[in-house]
Amino acid sequence: MKIAQIAPLVESVPPKFYGGTERVVAYLTDALVKLGHNVTLFASGDSITKARLVSVTPTSLRLSNCVDQMAGNILQLQEVMDRSHEFDLLHFHTDYLHFPVTRFCNKKTLTTLHGRLDIPELKPLYKKFNDVPVISISNAQRRPLPIANWVATVYHGLPVDLYQPGNGDGDYVVFLGRFSPEKRVDRAIEIAKRANIKIKIAAKVDKADERYFEKEIRHLLDQPHVEYLQEIGEAEKGPLLANAKALLFPIDWPEPFGMVLIEAMACGTPIIAYNHGSVPEIVDHGKTGFIVNSIEKATEALQNIHLISREDCRATFEKRFSNIVMAKNYVRLYERSLLKQPERSFYLTPAYRK
Amino acid sequence: MKIAQIAPLVESVPPKFYGGTERVVAYLTDALVKLGHNVTLFASGDSITKARLVSVTPTSLRLSNCVDQMAGNILQLQEVMDRSHEFDLLHFHTDYLHFPVTRFCNKKTLTTLHGRLDIPELKPLYKKFNDVPVISISNAQRRPLPIANWVATVYHGLPVDLYQPGNGDGDYVVFLGRFSPEKRVDRAIEIAKRANIKIKIAAKVDKADERYFEKEIRHLLDQPHVEYLQEIGEAEKGPLLANAKALLFPIDWPEPFGMVLIEAMACGTPIIAYNHGSVPEIVDHGKTGFIVNSIEKATEALQNIHLISREDCRATFEKRFSNIVMAKNYVRLYERSLLKQPERSFYLTPAYRK
Repeated sequence: MKIAQIAPLVESVPPKFYGGTERVVAYLTDALVKLGHNVTLFASGDSITKARLVSVTPTSLRLSNCVDQMAGNILQLQEVMDRSHEFDLLHFHTDYLHFPVTRFCNKKTLTTLHGRLDIPELKPLYKKFNDVPVISISNAQRRPLPIANWVATVYHGLPVDLYQPGNGDGDYVVFLGRFSPEKRVDRAIEIAKRANIKIKIAAKVDKADERYFEKEIRHLLDQPHVEYLQEIGEAEKGPLLANAKALLFPIDWPEPFGMVLIEAMACGTPIIAYNHGSVPEIVDHGKTGFIVNSIEKATEALQNIHLISREDCRATFEKRFSNIVMAKNYVRLYERSLLKQPERSFYLTPAYRK
Repeated sequence: MKIAQIAPLVESVPPKFYGGTERVVAYLTDALVKLGHNVTLFASGDSITKARLVSVTPTSLRLSNCVDQMAGNILQLQEVMDRSHEFDLLHFHTDYLHFPVTRFCNKKTLTTLHGRLDIPELKPLYKKFNDVPVISISNAQRRPLPIANWVATVYHGLPVDLYQPGNGDGDYVVFLGRFSPEKRVDRAIEIAKRANIKIKIAAKVDKADERYFEKEIRHLLDQPHVEYLQEIGEAEKGPLLANAKALLFPIDWPEPFGMVLIEAMACGTPIIAYNHGSVPEIVDHGKTGFIVNSIEKATEALQNIHLISREDCRATFEKRFSNIVMAKNYVRLYERSLLKQPERSFYLTPAYRK
C-alpha cells in the first residue's frame, strides 16, 4: 500500500527532545516499512526514518527558532496535497489543521488525534467536521467529544527491542515523566514512604510548571527515601525501569495514553496506577499491575507487587503494545477505509449537494 | 456585488482593544455597504457591522480566553467554504491560513496581507503559493516577498467623520502608539527637547516590551518637557492630535502602514517621520509633513512646521485615505478579478494537470 504519514513539524521524527506524537509516528512509520508498505513520511528535515522523507523545513520548528510556526505547517499541508496522487491513503497526525482541505481531495484520509480533547473550543469544531474519520489512542480519549466521527482506537506501540526486560531487584519504585500538577508526583512520594521503599524520580520541569515545582514539590524531594535524578536520556530509562519493583502512576487527569505505562511493561515492570483516562485500557488489574483509587490502596498494592509476574508484563507488552501490532492495526483500518468509504467525488458547495 | 469579508477572530470587528487589521476590516465593510454592495462579514459574534454578520464564536478569541485559538479559525474557514456559493468574491484578511483550501474552491478570492512580511519562514510559503493573488497595504510592505503574486496596493482608510480637524495651537507635539524599540519614542523625546517644545506621549506597553520600557524609556518620561498620558481611548485621540503642532513618527523599522499617520492627517496635523517602510508613500514631503533621516533634520523640520498647511493635510486625507476611497479601490480590484481571472475549475492534483 502507498501510505503517507504526516507528522507535526514542531519536533523531528523521532523527537530529539520531548514529543510523544513524533515518537509514535516514528515507530509506526518504521513498522509499516518493515511490513512491506511503500511509506512516505512528511516531517522536518532532521527526521530519521526507514521511509521516504519529504520535508518542507530543514529542521524541526523547535530547533529553527522561527517566528511563525504556522507557515511551515501550511507549507507542509500544501506539499501533501500536491503529492496526494502518489498515495492510496493519507494518515495525518496534525490535529485538525487539514480538515477543510482534505474534504476537497479525492483521496482517503485518516487522522489520529494524539492530544487531550477536553477543550471547549473543540466541540463546535468536531461537530462541523463530524464526517471526518478520526482515530483515538484510547477509548477514554473520546469521552469529551462523542460527536466526532470515531472509526477506531489504536493503542500506541514501541519497537520490541527498544527496552530489555529486567528482574526488578533494584529495591526501589520509579516515577517518570513531568512535574505537572496532574501527574501527582507528591502522591508517588507518599505511597513509597508508606510502603517504606525508596523512590527514584526522573522528571523534567516544564516552563509552565516551574512555580508549582518550587512551591509544592521541591521540598518533598529532600526526604531520605527520595532520589531525584532530574531529566534522563533514553539510554538510562531502560535500566531505571527494568530494575524497579514497580512504576508509580498516580495521575489526576484523563491522560489519553500514558507511554510510560507500556515502557514499564516492556521492561517487565508492574504498574500501580490511578484509575483515570486510558489507565484501565492499558493496565490489566492483577496481571500487569494494580489499578487503585487512594494512597492506602496504592500502598497495599505496592506491598503485594510480588503477586504480579514480570514475565506476564513483558508478554502483554509484546502481544498488545509493540509497534508491529500497532502498524498491523492501522493497516487493517487503511484497508477497511479503502474498501468501505465511497470514493469521494470533487467537492460541491452545499447548494449543489444532493 | 455579493462580497464576503473574512476577518481574524482574535479581536472583534471593530476591535475593543488594539487590533489594526480588525479596525480596517470594519471601516472597509461599512464603506462597501454604503456603496450599495451586499456584504457578509465573517467575524467574532461581538462584532458590530452594517453588513450581515456570520460568527462561529460568540466573542473574540482574546476575550474568550480559549486554550486553542486555531480551532475557531479553522471552524470559520470551513463556514466560509460552506457558504462560498453565496458570494461573487471572498476577501480574506487572515494571512495565509486559507491558501490550501481556497485553491479548491471555484470562487474568486483576494487576500489583503496586513502584517510585516520580513519573516524568513514566509519566503518558501509564498514561493509555493505564488499563484494566490495578494494585496499589499503599501508598496514597501512587498519588499521582503517579491515572489508573492501581488495584484495591487490598497492603502488603509478611515471614515471621514471619525476625526475632526483642529488648529494645532496646543503648543505641543505628540507621539502615539506602542513603547516598542522600533517605534523610537526616545528619538521623539529628544527631537522635542532640541526644538524646545512640549511632547505629549500616549502609548501602551505591550507585555513583550516591559523590560525595554523599564530599562530604556521610563526615566526619559521624567523630563520636564514630557507629559506621559499612558494609553488613551479613541475619544481622547482626536483632540490630542487636532491640537498638536505635529505628530512625531521617528520609526526604525519598515512599518507596512502607519495608521496614526492618516489619523494625524484627518486632524489636519502635519507629520515628521523617519524614512522607513510605507512612510514616503503616505507622507508627501513638504505638503503633509517632512520626511527626515536624523534627529537634527527632524528638529529643523519641527522648527519649520508652520510651512505645512493643515488644510492640505486634511484635504489629502479626504482625497487619499478615507474608507470610501479605500472601498472604491477594492471594488475596482474585485471587478478586475471577476473579469480577468479565469473561472477556476475543480482542482486536479499535479499528475492530472496539463
